[in-house]
Amino acid sequence: MVKFFGVRELVELLRILGVEEFLSNLIRYTRDDFLRWPQFEKSARVASHSPNGVIELMPISDGELYTFKYVNGHPGNTLSRKLTVTAFGVLADVRSGYPLLVSEMTISTALRTAATSALAASCLARGGSAVMALIGLGAQAEFQALAFKAALGIRKLQVFDVDPAAVMKFGSNMRGHGMEVISASSIVEAVKGADIVTTATAAKRNAVILTSDMIGSGVHINAIGGDCPGKTELDRALLQRARIFVEYLPQSRVEGEIQQLPVHSGITELWEVLAGSRPGRLSAADVTIFDSVGFAIEDFSLLRYLSDLSSTIDLHREIDLVPALEDPKDLFGLLREAPAPQRASRAG
Amino acid sequence: MVKFFGVRELVELLRILGVEEFLSNLIRYTRDDFLRWPQFEKSARVASHSPNGVIELMPISDGELYTFKYVNGHPGNTLSRKLTVTAFGVLADVRSGYPLLVSEMTISTALRTAATSALAASCLARGGSAVMALIGLGAQAEFQALAFKAALGIRKLQVFDVDPAAVMKFGSNMRGHGMEVISASSIVEAVKGADIVTTATAAKRNAVILTSDMIGSGVHINAIGGDCPGKTELDRALLQRARIFVEYLPQSRVEGEIQQLPVHSGITELWEVLAGSRPGRLSAADVTIFDSVGFAIEDFSLLRYLSDLSSTIDLHREIDLVPALEDPKDLFGLLREAPAPQRASRAG
Repeated sequence: MVKFFGVRELVELLRILGVEEFLSNLIRYTRDDFLRWPQFEKSARVASHSPNGVIELMPISDGELYTFKYVNGHPGNTLSRKLTVTAFGVLADVRSGYPLLVSEMTISTALRTAATSALAASCLARGGSAVMALIGLGAQAEFQALAFKAALGIRKLQVFDVDPAAVMKFGSNMRGHGMEVISASSIVEAVKGADIVTTATAAKRNAVILTSDMIGSGVHINAIGGDCPGKTELDRALLQRARIFVEYLPQSRVEGEIQQLPVHSGITELWEVLAGSRPGRLSAADVTIFDSVGFAIEDFSLLRYLSDLSSTIDLHREIDLVPALEDPKDLFGLLREAPAPQRASRAG
Repeated sequence: MVKFFGVRELVELLRILGVEEFLSNLIRYTRDDFLRWPQFEKSARVASHSPNGVIELMPISDGELYTFKYVNGHPGNTLSRKLTVTAFGVLADVRSGYPLLVSEMTISTALRTAATSALAASCLARGGSAVMALIGLGAQAEFQALAFKAALGIRKLQVFDVDPAAVMKFGSNMRGHGMEVISASSIVEAVKGADIVTTATAAKRNAVILTSDMIGSGVHINAIGGDCPGKTELDRALLQRARIFVEYLPQSRVEGEIQQLPVHSGITELWEVLAGSRPGRLSAADVTIFDSVGFAIEDFSLLRYLSDLSSTIDLHREIDLVPALEDPKDLFGLLREAPAPQRASRAG
């Protein structure tokens, strides 16, 4: 039997643990996996493009566990009240090749993205950062806010979205989470005085959410909305002024903000900063940018965490995705058996 | 909600429809998809190799539906009573990117492999073929036998396996299916007088199950056991003497029997024969070989058939792999709701 975490179980887990506790643990798992980066078999995602969007498979393995995520990106979906991004993932045992766990990953992708953002900021933002600007209050916003509270102690948010309903939704969702939320009337107002700026807009094309003149010295920018070819959020002049950090360079070159820069620009992979092999921020005056597009290792960390949780919290369902056979050569024998209930529940 | 076919539902479907009826329909779906071959976005599988085996993802799309299969191959698994090959698959809507159906594909892979074998033989074997030799009586054997009965009317099987327990198992499983099963004491004896020879051994390395002198003129060989680099079943001299047909040339060059041949050997893709654009068998004396390694389009056909079945036979389960949201920007709102049972069952 394969463990299954549906939307129901993810919601239940987050209620039991609390979102901040879940995120704190996930940040630890993600850090641990980034620290053993060279052990992973990495590849760029396998994408199938169509006029409306893209469907991607994101496999990765550390030689013991293998995971992949299925994820789509369809910007027009919201017109028919569907999500732009949905996802699910699978964790498997490399030794036997058997799938062990299947999970929803729509909520989980928001969680792992927020965890990675906070992990990056915890080693790139100035010490004592207290105020975060949050531009774009879509599906990811609350998770980002809570991850930065959990990892960096951020308590004050200056937020902006072009859609007033999104601002209302965010304010309502954040009640009771111990964070001060200030609604700004423009991006300029939101970023003013912020130590950290998170951009999470769904800008479809090359947009300019932040220009260089808006950003004072010392700011850390967490850019998560520029994540496919032709979809960026930051002004080129701002990129040229900053120290830039990415997840996986071969993928970010194509999908990240850095698609605007020449190939030989000095860009650092985040794992090197975490491992201490390359510097992060060099001075309090540096503008640092985490140009995040999302990488398979982050899904790996989440699935590994869920798998560990499933052995302490008995919450998951089990599904018969793989047959259990007495004789592995006798697959056809499954059809021979009388359909007795206990057999159906054992093999099925 | 996403439709789910577990092992239990597959077994139940096969009991309701009968294996032969299921295979006949599946052969029709597979033929239809092969006939529109140029419409598909095709790629070689994405493989992750490890010392014990391989895990592969096999995506394909026709622009309306997208499918992928997860499949492993671990020859040592049988030592711990696990299956060498397990698999599951997903069918998704290209327009929205949403997954629609998840299915077990361990049984389904045996079914779609058998359907493809029978489809190939129905246009490559001599008319009036009546006797099939079946070498290798593992997990695939019964499905192969029944597909050839359904599609070509084969009633007589001459079978061989090095493992007497596998021979016993096969004989027992085939009882009541209206086929005469003759157990041979050697491969030579099994293939003698056969119109069609199916090889489905789990030979790990380059093995020689069939040599050229065993095969008389006019025979059609259905070779399904040579399916990864360094794993073949047929003698090179036999290949050189035969007209060879494959599924998808770029993949078969690496994985099929034809890995033994020079790159420029004249090989035909099966869909061209089905479409009438290239010849199959040229004379009754030809030896024809279907060098089958399994291709994503066959999984696509199976998942498309299951999806169609699910709208007429109410058998599948539903799983909450993707959240249903009132407001697609309000993912976090899932956590806000009171965990009332009806909510859990709607969203979850």
